[in-house]
Amino acid sequence: MDGFDIDDIDEVIHGRIRLGIMAFLSGAGRADFTSLKTYLSATDGNLSVHLSKLEDAGYVTIEKQFVGKKPQTTVVLSEKGRKAFDLYLAAIGKLVEGG
Amino acid sequence: MDGFDIDDIDEVIHGRIRLGIMAFLSGAGRADFTSLKTYLSATDGNLSVHLSKLEDAGYVTIEKQFVGKKPQTTVVLSEKGRKAFDLYLAAIGKLVEGG
Repeated sequence: MDGFDIDDIDEVIHGRIRLGIMAFLSGAGRADFTSLKTYLSATDGNLSVHLSKLEDAGYVTIEKQFVGKKPQTTVVLSEKGRKAFDLYLAAIGKLVEGG
Repeated sequence: MDGFDIDDIDEVIHGRIRLGIMAFLSGAGRADFTSLKTYLSATDGNLSVHLSKLEDAGYVTIEKQFVGKKPQTTVVLSEKGRKAFDLYLAAIGKLVEGG
């Protein structure tokens, strides 16, 4: 228990749905709203709330555009968000390694 | 993102304070209430609430005894709790490994 410190755990990321969002984004760096919703089995409202929290922290940006007549929302992982997620993984990694 | 599945994350353990309790207990298997409180910088009330959740899940047992005239509360990790924590670490480990 020397390495792991719960104070190193970023609460903005740690929430389960937000963790799912960040994990999903960490690959391609961006995802459309619908794919995220399907992946997380979340409702529109629930996903929106958690995306707003990540946006407020500067971890993602939300892009809205029209594809033909359909509005499309894309969530993009920011540089700050990627760094925060890396720190989160490092902190939780100490736990996994029995830190 | 093939390996990591947020549905594998045990919500009872994932809460940050409860994660801290489980991590602390995973070493020696038991801890007195006061040590846990200090480690987590938690209030009596807050720690009690989270211990009750872990107790309800069968992950810990709470032992109360008198040491001289002083009541002492000891939290003991159960076999079920240790298994659940191992599963949690395995699930979160997939995230850390970039699963």
